[in-house]
Amino acid sequence: MLEKALIYADSHRAEHLSGLQEWLRIPSISTQPEYAQEVRRAAEFARRTLDEMGMSRVELRETGGHPVVYAEWSQAEGDASRLPTLLLYGHFDVQPVDPADQWLRLPFEPVVEADYIYARGASDDKGQAYAVLSGLACYLKTSGRLPVNVKVLLEGEEEITSRNLFAYLREHAQELAADAVLIADQDMLSVHHPVILWGVRGQVYMEISVRGPKRDLHSGTFGGSVDNPLNVLVRLLASLQDSQTRRVMVPKFYDRVQELSRSEQQLIASAPITEEIGLALTGARALAGESGYSLAERVSVRPTLEIHGITGGYSGEGSKTVIPSQASAKLGMRLVPDQEPAEIARLTEDYLRMQCPPTVELDFTVIGQANPVKIDYRSPAIAAADAAYRLGFGSPPVYLRGGGSLPIVHEMMQSLVSSGGQFPIPVVLIGFGLPDDGTHAPNERFYLPNFYRGIVTVIHYLDQFSRTRS
Amino acid sequence: MLEKALIYADSHRAEHLSGLQEWLRIPSISTQPEYAQEVRRAAEFARRTLDEMGMSRVELRETGGHPVVYAEWSQAEGDASRLPTLLLYGHFDVQPVDPADQWLRLPFEPVVEADYIYARGASDDKGQAYAVLSGLACYLKTSGRLPVNVKVLLEGEEEITSRNLFAYLREHAQELAADAVLIADQDMLSVHHPVILWGVRGQVYMEISVRGPKRDLHSGTFGGSVDNPLNVLVRLLASLQDSQTRRVMVPKFYDRVQELSRSEQQLIASAPITEEIGLALTGARALAGESGYSLAERVSVRPTLEIHGITGGYSGEGSKTVIPSQASAKLGMRLVPDQEPAEIARLTEDYLRMQCPPTVELDFTVIGQANPVKIDYRSPAIAAADAAYRLGFGSPPVYLRGGGSLPIVHEMMQSLVSSGGQFPIPVVLIGFGLPDDGTHAPNERFYLPNFYRGIVTVIHYLDQFSRTRS
Repeated sequence: MLEKALIYADSHRAEHLSGLQEWLRIPSISTQPEYAQEVRRAAEFARRTLDEMGMSRVELRETGGHPVVYAEWSQAEGDASRLPTLLLYGHFDVQPVDPADQWLRLPFEPVVEADYIYARGASDDKGQAYAVLSGLACYLKTSGRLPVNVKVLLEGEEEITSRNLFAYLREHAQELAADAVLIADQDMLSVHHPVILWGVRGQVYMEISVRGPKRDLHSGTFGGSVDNPLNVLVRLLASLQDSQTRRVMVPKFYDRVQELSRSEQQLIASAPITEEIGLALTGARALAGESGYSLAERVSVRPTLEIHGITGGYSGEGSKTVIPSQASAKLGMRLVPDQEPAEIARLTEDYLRMQCPPTVELDFTVIGQANPVKIDYRSPAIAAADAAYRLGFGSPPVYLRGGGSLPIVHEMMQSLVSSGGQFPIPVVLIGFGLPDDGTHAPNERFYLPNFYRGIVTVIHYLDQFSRTRS
Repeated sequence: MLEKALIYADSHRAEHLSGLQEWLRIPSISTQPEYAQEVRRAAEFARRTLDEMGMSRVELRETGGHPVVYAEWSQAEGDASRLPTLLLYGHFDVQPVDPADQWLRLPFEPVVEADYIYARGASDDKGQAYAVLSGLACYLKTSGRLPVNVKVLLEGEEEITSRNLFAYLREHAQELAADAVLIADQDMLSVHHPVILWGVRGQVYMEISVRGPKRDLHSGTFGGSVDNPLNVLVRLLASLQDSQTRRVMVPKFYDRVQELSRSEQQLIASAPITEEIGLALTGARALAGESGYSLAERVSVRPTLEIHGITGGYSGEGSKTVIPSQASAKLGMRLVPDQEPAEIARLTEDYLRMQCPPTVELDFTVIGQANPVKIDYRSPAIAAADAAYRLGFGSPPVYLRGGGSLPIVHEMMQSLVSSGGQFPIPVVLIGFGLPDDGTHAPNERFYLPNFYRGIVTVIHYLDQFSRTRS
């Protein structure tokens, strides 16, 4: 059964690639309301794909926001107790494309050049999710069955912090019960270094607006009479981070940050993350970050503060001498266990309000949040991933803490029932992306050898996982 | 001759309004290259208007950028020594319209509602310049002559710091020789308080760009590894102004700022500029500005620093977790005598470079500059404006230093030959705008009673000015 699936994977690459291309053509940008129908089209595509490969109970389900897609496969009645159950999760929504003028190819007309496929979502996450679906198809189309019971849950709101999925998980906790969850939505360190994440950072995403004069003012006539909202905004934002240590200046920000155990420190130090790699991947003149921590620690187990965008005033060509009536900033913080997003947002708001002059109004909004997570890296479900990676990529995985946020991981660990009785449910975080895929950036791409090896790895994972119950 | 002109002005209001409306329909935005043909159309409209009223040598002249319009009228040969000569200056280019979504009417489809005409350029400066042209027409159409020799110079690059006019003035200094220059391009304090400016602030307009990583990065994967250009930019910008005193922190910034004489201080203190008016005009919660100076001083004889716009990162709806590869800001400083724009730009650049971390590249560009100017408020040409205002508006003028910048004023005082032998040539700065006209902002408008009184004031000015030579 395993061998037939592997042979099928090898001989059907073109078919899998062409399926992925079709999915990538759908501009399923979840954050922009005008693309809502496209997100639904991407869901419908996934539903059809799962249906055609022979999964059961394939359904598109409403959530109040963008829909989710659900499917399952179980062995025949009577045998049901023998196989372990795996929940597969992925997402079909993508990030916006801007700056649109920096794309060298159209973001939703996927192009294959050399060993890459270029498109928004190619790596994050359609390419990786499609590798998982293709892995299932390789079994179903050759043996008509899977080596484990499988449940598939694909969502369309991952890029907007899985707004409606939390309620969905709670309402469907019994239906989604499984022995483990497998998620393929992350980067490897390099083609020779697949990664297993034993945690992810959390996040709080905020929007800050400063409102001053009731209308835009001419800076000649009115310059010197009012506080310019942009002047105030940059002062507030600058106060958040120390210019020397790059530490966040919000009082109590670090109070709940967990110190690492010695074995955890060693695990992180053993990862092949070097300054050279960091420089090569970012193209920065020099690396930077919180004083006193290694690069590997700064991108995984330390919190950060990033300004994601500022608007206000004139941004066209040439000059316009305006004092804008308002200015705003999008601000994100990556959090680590045991920081709590809501508390960090409140501390940040308090700190900003304390400094904001009474000449302006300050609006503070939390747009999204995700809890940080730590995962037990010694579970059998993770051992299965270790084995599958060695077989699929020919390399042992590196164990890392993830820098990004997967809000559903924390929620799954809180909500889902483990059919094996474990709590929290083991969540296995793997992925086939590469650090220079350009996720969330212009010219996103996916390395095709990793797409095909990803399919093989999924095939092996299902086989390896089938042995965890025995 | 005076009386006939005044009667004509009174009985031809509809005609003057309709001419202005036609000019306002032309979107002559000088800073956006795609509107270059429209700026030219606005010039052509002015040329035709001057031609039809009976001015001589009416020409559209090339400058390397947007064209200027020139016209003149002189008394018959043989009488030439009797009349003084007045140079009239105005501009037909306008500011961009953004934020476009805040206009309640279309910016280039002028609408008259109650006593206002709404359109971009209605007040700054087409409405005021058209009042000047209409004043000339009232004489020419009733008496076939003017009470003084007149030269008219209209430009299309005032909103982009008169880029090409300086060279034009130098090359045409003899042709433009006059006893005084009259410019109507400013606000009154209120309908009862016309204004004569005895100086204007200068300006330096800069663009600052911070370049970091070679491409946009995912803030999860890369957060903690590089300096975010937006984080660096807000720190640099915040360092420019003291949060408490609102003083500019660039070393030596204030070194050349002139202290005012006692009589100058009294002239400024006597102007009816109150906190109440400032609050009403701006709609701000509270006024603000440099510590230790009155509102009237802060908006006229003290330098300022304003951030006019910031770009970089994501500015769409919702969230995008990006570390942008670069970020930039438009920054303007209003300067006062004897600050020198080029020197201030250099000091600012030095100060920013000193603080900029070596992890990013800093680009610094000067987009525009204008010298500050002080004018002798006791010249006969200004006394003529004082008298004309009293007759046209029924109120004595207030003497103020202007907060805005008119780059050509300094250049005219440097370049132009005074036919009366005075150096520098007297420049008379008057205007018919109101502070809530919304110049440079959405929903710009012009108060029509001021348009008609402006025409009458110009008629009186020509008459008053004709007596200065006798």
